[in-house]
Amino acid sequence: MIDNFSEEPWRGFASDNYAGVHLEVLDAIASVNVGHQSAYGDDNVTKQATGMIRDLLGGQAQFLPVFNGTGANVVALQAATARWQSVICSATAHIHADEGGAPESVAGIKLWTVPTDDGKLRPADVQGQCFDMEFVHRAQPGAVSLTQSSEMGTVYSPDEVASIAEVAHANGLALHMDGARLSNAAASLGVPLRTFTADAGVDLLSFGLTKNGAMLAESVVVVNPSRVQGVDFLRKTSMQLASKMRFLSAQFVALLADDLWLRSAAHANAMARRLRDGVSELPGVTVTQSVDANAVFAILPADVTTRLQERFQFYTWDQVTGEVRWMCAWDTTEGDVDEFVSAVREELSTGA
Amino acid sequence: MIDNFSEEPWRGFASDNYAGVHLEVLDAIASVNVGHQSAYGDDNVTKQATGMIRDLLGGQAQFLPVFNGTGANVVALQAATARWQSVICSATAHIHADEGGAPESVAGIKLWTVPTDDGKLRPADVQGQCFDMEFVHRAQPGAVSLTQSSEMGTVYSPDEVASIAEVAHANGLALHMDGARLSNAAASLGVPLRTFTADAGVDLLSFGLTKNGAMLAESVVVVNPSRVQGVDFLRKTSMQLASKMRFLSAQFVALLADDLWLRSAAHANAMARRLRDGVSELPGVTVTQSVDANAVFAILPADVTTRLQERFQFYTWDQVTGEVRWMCAWDTTEGDVDEFVSAVREELSTGA
Amino acid sequence: MIDNFSEEPWRGFASDNYAGVHLEVLDAIASVNVGHQSAYGDDNVTKQATGMIRDLLGGQAQFLPVFNGTGANVVALQAATARWQSVICSATAHIHADEGGAPESVAGIKLWTVPTDDGKLRPADVQGQCFDMEFVHRAQPGAVSLTQSSEMGTVYSPDEVASIAEVAHANGLALHMDGARLSNAAASLGVPLRTFTADAGVDLLSFGLTKNGAMLAESVVVVNPSRVQGVDFLRKTSMQLASKMRFLSAQFVALLADDLWLRSAAHANAMARRLRDGVSELPGVTVTQSVDANAVFAILPADVTTRLQERFQFYTWDQVTGEVRWMCAWDTTEGDVDEFVSAVREELSTGA
Amino acid sequence: MIDNFSEEPWRGFASDNYAGVHLEVLDAIASVNVGHQSAYGDDNVTKQATGMIRDLLGGQAQFLPVFNGTGANVVALQAATARWQSVICSATAHIHADEGGAPESVAGIKLWTVPTDDGKLRPADVQGQCFDMEFVHRAQPGAVSLTQSSEMGTVYSPDEVASIAEVAHANGLALHMDGARLSNAAASLGVPLRTFTADAGVDLLSFGLTKNGAMLAESVVVVNPSRVQGVDFLRKTSMQLASKMRFLSAQFVALLADDLWLRSAAHANAMARRLRDGVSELPGVTVTQSVDANAVFAILPADVTTRLQERFQFYTWDQVTGEVRWMCAWDTTEGDVDEFVSAVREELSTGA
Repeated sequence: MIDNFSEEPWRGFASDNYAGVHLEVLDAIASVNVGHQSAYGDDNVTKQATGMIRDLLGGQAQFLPVFNGTGANVVALQAATARWQSVICSATAHIHADEGGAPESVAGIKLWTVPTDDGKLRPADVQGQCFDMEFVHRAQPGAVSLTQSSEMGTVYSPDEVASIAEVAHANGLALHMDGARLSNAAASLGVPLRTFTADAGVDLLSFGLTKNGAMLAESVVVVNPSRVQGVDFLRKTSMQLASKMRFLSAQFVALLADDLWLRSAAHANAMARRLRDGVSELPGVTVTQSVDANAVFAILPADVTTRLQERFQFYTWDQVTGEVRWMCAWDTTEGDVDEFVSAVREELSTGA
Repeated sequence: MIDNFSEEPWRGFASDNYAGVHLEVLDAIASVNVGHQSAYGDDNVTKQATGMIRDLLGGQAQFLPVFNGTGANVVALQAATARWQSVICSATAHIHADEGGAPESVAGIKLWTVPTDDGKLRPADVQGQCFDMEFVHRAQPGAVSLTQSSEMGTVYSPDEVASIAEVAHANGLALHMDGARLSNAAASLGVPLRTFTADAGVDLLSFGLTKNGAMLAESVVVVNPSRVQGVDFLRKTSMQLASKMRFLSAQFVALLADDLWLRSAAHANAMARRLRDGVSELPGVTVTQSVDANAVFAILPADVTTRLQERFQFYTWDQVTGEVRWMCAWDTTEGDVDEFVSAVREELSTGA
Repeated sequence: MIDNFSEEPWRGFASDNYAGVHLEVLDAIASVNVGHQSAYGDDNVTKQATGMIRDLLGGQAQFLPVFNGTGANVVALQAATARWQSVICSATAHIHADEGGAPESVAGIKLWTVPTDDGKLRPADVQGQCFDMEFVHRAQPGAVSLTQSSEMGTVYSPDEVASIAEVAHANGLALHMDGARLSNAAASLGVPLRTFTADAGVDLLSFGLTKNGAMLAESVVVVNPSRVQGVDFLRKTSMQLASKMRFLSAQFVALLADDLWLRSAAHANAMARRLRDGVSELPGVTVTQSVDANAVFAILPADVTTRLQERFQFYTWDQVTGEVRWMCAWDTTEGDVDEFVSAVREELSTGA
Repeated sequence: MIDNFSEEPWRGFASDNYAGVHLEVLDAIASVNVGHQSAYGDDNVTKQATGMIRDLLGGQAQFLPVFNGTGANVVALQAATARWQSVICSATAHIHADEGGAPESVAGIKLWTVPTDDGKLRPADVQGQCFDMEFVHRAQPGAVSLTQSSEMGTVYSPDEVASIAEVAHANGLALHMDGARLSNAAASLGVPLRTFTADAGVDLLSFGLTKNGAMLAESVVVVNPSRVQGVDFLRKTSMQLASKMRFLSAQFVALLADDLWLRSAAHANAMARRLRDGVSELPGVTVTQSVDANAVFAILPADVTTRLQERFQFYTWDQVTGEVRWMCAWDTTEGDVDEFVSAVREELSTGA
């Protein structure tokens, strides 16, 4: 029925959301396809997923499945700020650079952005935006948003998160964590999820598994309800409430069971390190960021990039410097990496 | 892995989105889970679904999968109106009554609502809102939104749609059709989809299949691109752009193939008629709306409703009159209907 | 310097904002034009006006001058509702019918409107909209907005306001009063301003004097700060913060001093009653609303209206019924009224 | 009637909107206070002002008085962009730093900001933001906004404006000029207004006179209607439409007549140069920006600033560097400047 599909399966390094879906996820979806269930989250599967989230993040956690990462972020940021407030984030933050202006357009939220070298905010960056508090001419900061792992493939340590939480809370700001790749951070840090979230002072999360082998499984998780308002209503008003929610929640269950989320992310991270190790030794390639998670950023000659992109899909990240991004996914194999490293070597020598 | 699920499968008449998913849909999803595919719609499955939509609605149709019906409606209405414009709809319209204020909150769109007896707008209703055009004090109508089939289970004939399109276009307004249950209307009318959409003057559609046996498959379909602006951008900005879109598009392919969408809807409609026929003959039950599609609206004694709701899930639609809504789905069986009609008979006699 | 202006001064019955400005207002403006003053409200004149408002409305009242009535309403309603909440108002409310969709467009606020005969909401109207509270699919009511005097020239008694406040507060809603013509209501009721506002349970007001002989003098007045959030910030963010605010505040001082606001409104009200008395006795004219304030609504033959509008400016209110609105202003004279009544009499007899 | 006002008239260097109003403005206001006039701009005074604007900016110019600069900017930017588009501006732009997030909150407009040394964008800054055009993940630039004179007191030459217009138009962007201090730029450049606006490719302007001796006189002026949509409607919907507009327009007439606007601005500019000259020779004071218009930016020892601010009002612009801003107004006298320069000299020597 589906045309032309399985003929030439391919893999590349463009994005972890080019990857497919775990068979466990498909199985879970099929297994909940029985009879009727109340829509909009009042179903047994969502209850089970909520319990699993609370095991990870604490008994007061609220779990709200949504459709995509932008949706999770914009619902969360609305719930954490008043109508007149703004949000502090890195200049590379997905909410700023890659969400089509959704925070501003949907929620009217201004972003105060801070340039960073590695995609990670520092406490001083947050404090530096907390001036003119109570001065009506400045859109008042109401929340800080971190991305973990960051858009540059780096990971905040628990202490780094905690030190930002301290500055945020001291200024009356909520702390949001954009966790479209939270799994990769957890796998990278090797500590329990709550160590660098709830226990480090994060108030609410966007926790997504789509990039980690789900089909469509994103969520807002409220860790500290005292800093958050109306998140249930905002999910609906922001068009992020799924009717047949059991099929979203089933994906969370499948991935959270038996640590599949962690194992998948650990594998993707390992493939990124293997890729980094492979290209690092090649003359002409400079890895530009610490490979903490599943992304490798590198600079290489423009002609080499051009030829490589004819063979493998990946993105040029910075048109000016020629920096490229190579993403590894849960389904990237050692063979994929080795083949790609060989290709880089070939094209470098061709160019020489 | 999934707890407590298949033990007691149940079915009710609360909503067609309480129903499950066609096996063909699950199969299609599994069949596209091969290798990598470009994200965000640049994939082969979405191309195939687009072709199928164009076969139905014309070669210039644009097909944009989105997450839910509210999302489809709000993206479509933004694409059809300028920043300062408003939308005319029925007072029972889902966009007005049931979307948590999303059109206003997300898009700033004011709705001019018209009371109707049967959920269907008439040309005079539209014309009646087209006053003070060019007068800045009145939020200027920019589009009309019809629901097909309507929230009251009624269906617009092709001529009814065409007569509204005529008034809309004469006043410079675009015509949008909210088609969360478009399939049921098509099955009810027994004419090609384009007869009461593109050919009748509809400019853009929300076309959803979630209620008709998909898992999560909604879309905006632009039929007349000349009246629509920026719909690609608006889908992203409105947080309705799926990354792994192939899995949404596969659901469209599964349902549009071999007319599964039409057969499913025809079945649900037939079950609603069977239910109507069953309860119509019972003294104390008044069916209040024409059963054109898959909904039955009825008034019955309050105590009967109470007792029935302990046995079957369904909604009281109007707290004042006691009107109830019974929805039939693609998976409703003749046995389900007959059992329910018997229960109504029992509870009526108990109450007597 | 100003061209062609004083040659043919005219007066009509179109709107009280067609009228000019009290000389006391011009004098007050001139008298504060001395040296520098801090901008944005941190000036002595605004302090003085705030004191006068507190004398009228209680010592905890916050006084925020803004630019126009729409601005006052939208700032107030934002301050009284959360991001996801909606507002209940009459279907004739200015915020619904005449503000170009500003509450929706600027603030994303959905309005739940209730038809009324006389422009006045009843407690049952409010209660009737307070259903599905806590149900995410319905935009949750967060405030009620009354217009005093109403758009139909009627006035709520203190008891009527109190009974609505009771229902609003019992449902957790704030009570806002749109007081673009609050002066006319106060003059009509003959009770202190606070009797039908603060003491009757109103939480915040839009209090305007522009229609009552000021040049540009509108405000938000918060009477009950416990139900209001961020109004200072919202005024700025909503583009309603004047830099040289002393010149706005001076207008409030001029009108609030020596009860000029009340005397002006009482005069306009008296002129409306004189007009009502004059036309009521004419066969063919039906006064359609109680003339509580400074507006007269009437139905008369369409051809008479047409001929009258060639001689005097006024608005046809309802194109279907032919209902017209005649507004009296602070500067309407007995002669103006008598001349107009004579004209009506003439045109009625011409038409006969 | 007005308390405590004229006792101690003072002047400072905090802002040109701390200054009062020209007597000519008061006279014009009084002179139009005759009889009734149609509200909302359909009056003779607004017609006259429109004619004067067209004499300056071309016969197709549309003139829309509004309330404040933020209102002018947000109306203009909405009129120049589609729902999904964004705006490029300097990081020091008033729309970004000082409008309480109004562009985002009211209009959902994302701002792409570029750091500058002197408050002026360069063509390369604009071009540098015009990447990923047609890529839905990036909020698409739809307009560029320049501030003339800039927030740093600098002025764009006609050629500089034209070169930015060229880049903007080549990328399909409209060019907006925020002219809260447009008069000061015109006086500084010594060329006709249209030379650096309409003739240089500006499509629409915020043209304000409040800071230049008016009471409340801001406007949107559309120079190139082909790049602008719905500005009349947007003014209303954005709560910027004055009812008694003749009193706003009269202020434009008063200032545009006999070049009062230019003479006032030239005087303020001259005072700023006198101040610059006075402090430049003082050891310990560094003037940090070119004094093109009526602002002087300088760095001086922190303790000197503290003591000076006890004697004269002015703002510290940058808490980190200690940079201060001294604004001169139309009513600043040579004596004011000389007294202030002496005070700076005194406090510098005290500090030594």
